[in-house]
Parts: sequence; C-alpha cells; structure tokens
Amino acid sequence: MFEIQAVSCEHSEKIQAKIDGKTKPLGALGDLELLAKQIAQIQLISTIADTKNNILNDDPTDTQHKLQLVSPHLTVFAGDHGIASEGVSIAPSDVTSQMVANFANGGAAINVLCRQFGWQLSVVDAGILHPPAASLPVINQRLGYITQAINQQAAMTEAQVEQGFSFALQHINKIKASGCNIVAFGEMGIGNTTIASAIMAAIMKVPVSDVVGRGTGVSDDVVKKKQQVIEQALALHAENLVDAKAILRCIGGFELVQITAAMLAAAENNMLIIVDGFICTAAAMLAIELNANVKGYMVFAHCSGEQGHQKMLQWLNVKPLLNLGLRLGEGTGAALALPILQAAVAFYNDMASFVDAEVTDVT
Amino acid sequence: MFEIQAVSCEHSEKIQAKIDGKTKPLGALGDLELLAKQIAQIQLISTIADTKNNILNDDPTDTQHKLQLVSPHLTVFAGDHGIASEGVSIAPSDVTSQMVANFANGGAAINVLCRQFGWQLSVVDAGILHPPAASLPVINQRLGYITQAINQQAAMTEAQVEQGFSFALQHINKIKASGCNIVAFGEMGIGNTTIASAIMAAIMKVPVSDVVGRGTGVSDDVVKKKQQVIEQALALHAENLVDAKAILRCIGGFELVQITAAMLAAAENNMLIIVDGFICTAAAMLAIELNANVKGYMVFAHCSGEQGHQKMLQWLNVKPLLNLGLRLGEGTGAALALPILQAAVAFYNDMASFVDAEVTDVT
Repeated sequence: MFEIQAVSCEHSEKIQAKIDGKTKPLGALGDLELLAKQIAQIQLISTIADTKNNILNDDPTDTQHKLQLVSPHLTVFAGDHGIASEGVSIAPSDVTSQMVANFANGGAAINVLCRQFGWQLSVVDAGILHPPAASLPVINQRLGYITQAINQQAAMTEAQVEQGFSFALQHINKIKASGCNIVAFGEMGIGNTTIASAIMAAIMKVPVSDVVGRGTGVSDDVVKKKQQVIEQALALHAENLVDAKAILRCIGGFELVQITAAMLAAAENNMLIIVDGFICTAAAMLAIELNANVKGYMVFAHCSGEQGHQKMLQWLNVKPLLNLGLRLGEGTGAALALPILQAAVAFYNDMASFVDAEVTDVT
Repeated sequence: MFEIQAVSCEHSEKIQAKIDGKTKPLGALGDLELLAKQIAQIQLISTIADTKNNILNDDPTDTQHKLQLVSPHLTVFAGDHGIASEGVSIAPSDVTSQMVANFANGGAAINVLCRQFGWQLSVVDAGILHPPAASLPVINQRLGYITQAINQQAAMTEAQVEQGFSFALQHINKIKASGCNIVAFGEMGIGNTTIASAIMAAIMKVPVSDVVGRGTGVSDDVVKKKQQVIEQALALHAENLVDAKAILRCIGGFELVQITAAMLAAAENNMLIIVDGFICTAAAMLAIELNANVKGYMVFAHCSGEQGHQKMLQWLNVKPLLNLGLRLGEGTGAALALPILQAAVAFYNDMASFVDAEVTDVT
C-alpha cells in the first residue's frame, strides 16, 4: 500500500567521519550526533530519489552537501470517541470541538509553540461531534461525528478506515508540494488516551493495568473505569484484532486512523517524522506494524507524563529527545523538539573541522 | 559582597492562577509551567527594583504583564590548568588556545548554537597558556598564563581570585547595560573536568571515585590518574578548604573563578542564569555556597554525559531541562535550552484562557 524505502546505511561511514572530524571530542554532542546522522541518511535517499531538489550531490563528506529542514509542518487531527460517554475523561466530548475552535483561533498551546518555532500549523477535523463553523480555518476530513463506543462494537467500519487513509495521503501530498521535508502530528479528542491505551495493549500484548494512566488528570475511580472499558473492548474484539488496520477499525479513532496513515505517507515521501506523545506513539506503533521501514524516518520527540508512554518507547527501543513531563497532546512535545533538530543540522553543516580550524585532533 | 534579593514568592498564587487558567488540563505543560512561574517571580522582582524597564505593572494576572527574555548573552570563559601536565586529559594545554581561536573565528559548536538560537556570544580569556592574537575578538580578563598544579600547591593567589571576581562583575555590568536579562556561561580549559571533580568532592564531601568521570573521553588509566591527583590535592589543601573562595584559590581555575562570580553578579542584577554542564555546575555550587539566594535565579539546562554531573544535580535537588548525552562544555547545553525557556514565556504571555476561548473548564 505504501512504498517506503528503507533508510540507507550506505553512506554511514562517510557521514560518521564528517561528524567525527568536527572540533569536539568523539561523540561529545551526544544525541545531536545521532540525529544528524539519521537526517543525513534520510536526506541522501531523498537526494537520489528526487532530482529536482537543491542538494548538489550525494557525497556527505563534500562541503557542498548540506542538510536542510524545509518548511516544518505540524498537523493536529481531531476526532471524537464514543467511549467518552462511558466516563473515561475529565471533560465531555463537547470540549473537542471547543478546542478545535481554539486551535483555529490561534489560542491553544500548540498555536503558541508553532508560532514560536516556525511550524506551519494545519488543523484537521477528522470527525468531531460539533463540526466547526465554516468560517474557521479547519480542513474537513471528517469520517463521521463520533466513533462507536469500543466496548460495545467496532469503533468504525472498514470503509471509514480506508477513507481516513485516503484523506491522510492527500493531506501529506499537499504538504509535500509546499517543499516541506519535516512533519509532525498532534491530536485532540476527548477519550483518546483510553483509545491509545487499548491499542497499546493490543499491540504489545501486556496487561491493561500496564497501559492505563491518568490521561489529562483523572481520579483513581476513572482509572479503574478506563481499565474496565478497555478489558471489555479487548475481549469483545479479541478474534478480530489480526492486524493494524483491524485494530484501527475495532478500537481506534478517526484521528488515530489519519495520523497512522499520514506517518506512512510522509515516510513514502522521504520526510522526517517527529512523533509526539502517548497517542501519536500509538499511531506510530500501528504505522510500524503496517510497514516497518517507516520507523527509520521517525524521531521520538519526548517522553510524556502519561505512564504508558515510557513503556511504549522502551518496547520500540527508541530514546525520546525531551522529558519535560508534558501530558497535553496537540503535538506540543513534537513542536518543542524542532530546535534540537535544527541544532543537529546546524552543527553538521556549519561547525569547523579540526583541519579547518587548525585544532590538534587527539580523538 | 553580592547583594542578591531572594526570589519572591509574594505573587506565587496569582502567577499559578494565571497558568492554571490557560486552556489545558492542570499541570499538563509540565516543566514549562515551573519555568514560567520561576521567570515570572524573577521578573516581578525586576519590575519592582527597576522602574526604567518596560513592564507596566507588577500584577501577574493583568494581561499587560508580559514576561520577556531580552538579548540572551552567553559568555565562554577559557583558562588553562597546571594539572593538565599531569596527564589527566586526552589533549595538551595548547588545545585551549586553539579552541579560543576557533570560538573567535566562529567555527566551534557553541558558535553554531548561538547563531542558531540568537545568543549574543562573548569569549573571555580568563588566563590561557598562549594569549590570543590581538586581532581576535576575545575579551582580555587574564589572571595569568596557567594555574599551578593543584596537587603541588594552591592553584592561584587570593589576589588572583579577587581580580577574577572584579573582572566578572565588570563583564556582567556591561552585558546588563545592553538590556540583557538572561545569561549563560560556558567554559574551555584542558584539564578542567579534573578541577570540577575536585571542587565537587570538596563541597559534597564524597569519595573521589564518585566524582571522577571520563571528561571528554579518557581511558581507564587516565581516570585512575585523575583520582590520584585529586586525592593528592584534597589532602594537600585539607586545612585550607574552609569556604568557596578558598576552594577556588586552592583547587579552582581562572575560568571557574570568573564563572562563579559572574553568576553572583547576574543574580544581583535580577538576571536569569542558565547553568550548563559539569564544570559550570561546579561553579554554580560555589556561587550558592557564597550566597544561597543565587539559586533561585538559576535554571539547570541539562544533565551531561559526565558521570558526576547527575550526582551534583541530585545534591542540589534540581531537575535539568535536557538530557541529550552532551559532554562538550563550551556552554552548549545552556545554549540548547533557550528555546524551552522561550516556549515557557510564550505560553504564559500568549496562550488563551478558558474564559477567552470559551472552552469548558473542568480542571
């Protein structure tokens, strides 16, 4: 379905030699060095695949070879969840639509961070209870008003999943046409930590008590309720959770479907993908189940305050860049990680080598 | 010697109420919320103390009350260490001067990061073996060519310590005159992880094996040599390590003296201080010993890859913002933290409240 090139290790040694030649002890820039290497590997694929871009050649040791982060684009996908009426969240589903209006009006945390760091921000209605006013700058990719409660029936139909994939692909193609080569995704949807927890349990096959946290701040009673609902859902759909698309259909959400597909489409286009917190990491796990090559394009932005997230990251064997106790969603962690990536690109492109600077290389 | 106002808790409740009124669950922006609160508390002192600034009033709940990070300034202090000739580093002392030239020519990691994030960068020669060419943009605050080897005699004289404090104060006063209200410090000095380890052992009174790491990448044999040299130094000066200034004189370094004093001078001027890694944290510990009020002005930028650093941060009971495995020094970790601080200020100033955005407040 998605043709994703494996991130190439072909030039690894040359890239590493360039990094090691910079005026610093070996490895002293820590995670920035790993990031620079990953970005170089992705952008070399891109150089080979896309003759229209500005990179002059594919030799990473050539001084002309520069990494670039072009037109960073963050998309918030919003969706409503039938499960919310089971009392798994502190807020009613109405708040999803209110927050979508807040995004459209520029007042939410993700707006502030995107303005601060230079992300282009799109807001997508993937299917929320109260469709936004037509005057608001919200992209209509609606799959319905709200999903079914997953402890009673499948969240959505196969046709809705396919429509979500199609919408997401179109959206990424539009972003790609703007020249963008780095994307991030955020989400809004009352009840979606419960959905992400269910997905986590289905993929990792761990007890439900390991995957349920406090979401945006619920009480002990609500944590118990979330566990119960997820156990019901996993039991109900046990026979049907055969692959990632089936998981999305049975226990997913409209925003989760579109984020999963958008990640795959972004990798197909050789874009760097910044993965946000708990909910987006659930989508990342689904995307990896569908095509393992997508993982090489992903940078995991942060470890959220939601308890299951750390376990997801460990299971994926990835190290997040930031650990700031964020548990807001919206893509806020991904937005905050951009300067770290820009720093990695800047040192790779612009820092002097031992030879350039006439510094004794004792490394 | 330094008159530093304690960071005020007077308006804490009002500041917290403003943060809690933003359109997000309580506490969901994690460390950004703590940072915003700290900055607000510092800048309220500043408002009261300095009637010339642009802040219109001191009521944090007033929409006119904005936090500001003005003209961020990072100073790299370089110094050479007699102890380097004992074989405690991978590089000879000559490299300190070579790297100072690299800073002056804009090629080092710290130059790249300062350009990327908008830090004004100053390079101070606090006393290096080969003084830089007069044509280079390096500030002359020399205390000598190189310190004495601390395992043989005191690193410097009392007069050198006092001269270092005086230089640092002048430097901060010049920066303050530019309108700057946020500073960071970096360092360069072959042998200075050994010096910082000795300071750590002297202040924390822990075994030398707990404070010695690999610096910028030394072997097991060199780690042993570092331990031995530090044990000799601590034994030699045992009677004299009575306070922070005596520690600086006996086992300090020219750059360490000036960074310690610059931190105190910055706090006296109500500036926010971004503390870099292992060596700068040793200076921060000395500054706190001299005047505990300075701590309230400090943000700890990152946990470095140098093994002792985490223990220092635990001892200080502070949580670093970043953990990227950096072990370069130069102020690179501090430089990287600036966008996180800017994000904290931006959400505090610009994010909508539940009332503004007509979002149901269920928090």
